[in-house]
Amino acid sequence: MEPTESEGLVEANARFYRVFESQDLARMDQVWSHGPNVKCVHPGWPMLIGWEAVRQSWAAIFENTEEMRFTISDVRAETVGALGWVTCTENILSDVRGRVAVTSILATNLFTRVEDAWLMIHHHASHVLSSAETAEA
Amino acid sequence: MEPTESEGLVEANARFYRVFESQDLARMDQVWSHGPNVKCVHPGWPMLIGWEAVRQSWAAIFENTEEMRFTISDVRAETVGALGWVTCTENILSDVRGRVAVTSILATNLFTRVEDAWLMIHHHASHVLSSAETAEA
Repeated sequence: MEPTESEGLVEANARFYRVFESQDLARMDQVWSHGPNVKCVHPGWPMLIGWEAVRQSWAAIFENTEEMRFTISDVRAETVGALGWVTCTENILSDVRGRVAVTSILATNLFTRVEDAWLMIHHHASHVLSSAETAEA
Repeated sequence: MEPTESEGLVEANARFYRVFESQDLARMDQVWSHGPNVKCVHPGWPMLIGWEAVRQSWAAIFENTEEMRFTISDVRAETVGALGWVTCTENILSDVRGRVAVTSILATNLFTRVEDAWLMIHHHASHVLSSAETAEA
């Protein structure tokens, strides 16, 4: 199969989560579009509007997080011209007193294509409320 | 000012919430695209994929809800060609033992333009966790 636009988009989405895991703000700068209309909803947070507010939220999250590991599943990507959107499940692993907890978060991510790159313009993440939310190692 | 594509999109978004309030499944049929790739996240629910699953969720919600009143705020709409996305706050008013409660939900809604109509293809709604979540009448 030939590479498709969706594959580039899936890779951009995966890159976003690797950067999230790295907690490197300079790399987060490179993943996002920097316009006044970019938006971000972290789980339970109000909607942040504009790159300045979005960037500050990443700075705050990175300052207050010791370590974060993700696996991403259920990835579905679609494109219409220069706009792409991806839905996925963020499976966040954390170590709580020797037990591995898995938190499932659903995400809708929008990207705009600028030359060869897909840049994030919208991230909406929210908790799934279910009995399968945590597991013991 | 001339009417813009965004204005048509804002109206499609408003129509979705009027239909939600009406709890009329036949009208909900008309608001959504019916493809296998449409997706829906109700607050706290897992992601539903495909029109059949999405439609069933609306049927279940309408069966289990007595009355629902919305006001929509913070509406921001953008279009790229035949794709449009809207973010907004759903302020859901409910009457709980004589007290009016307001629940704030954030939504990301995607629409595709088919001829003159904007049809919903994705709805992601999630709770905001804040002390301002409820108010007394």
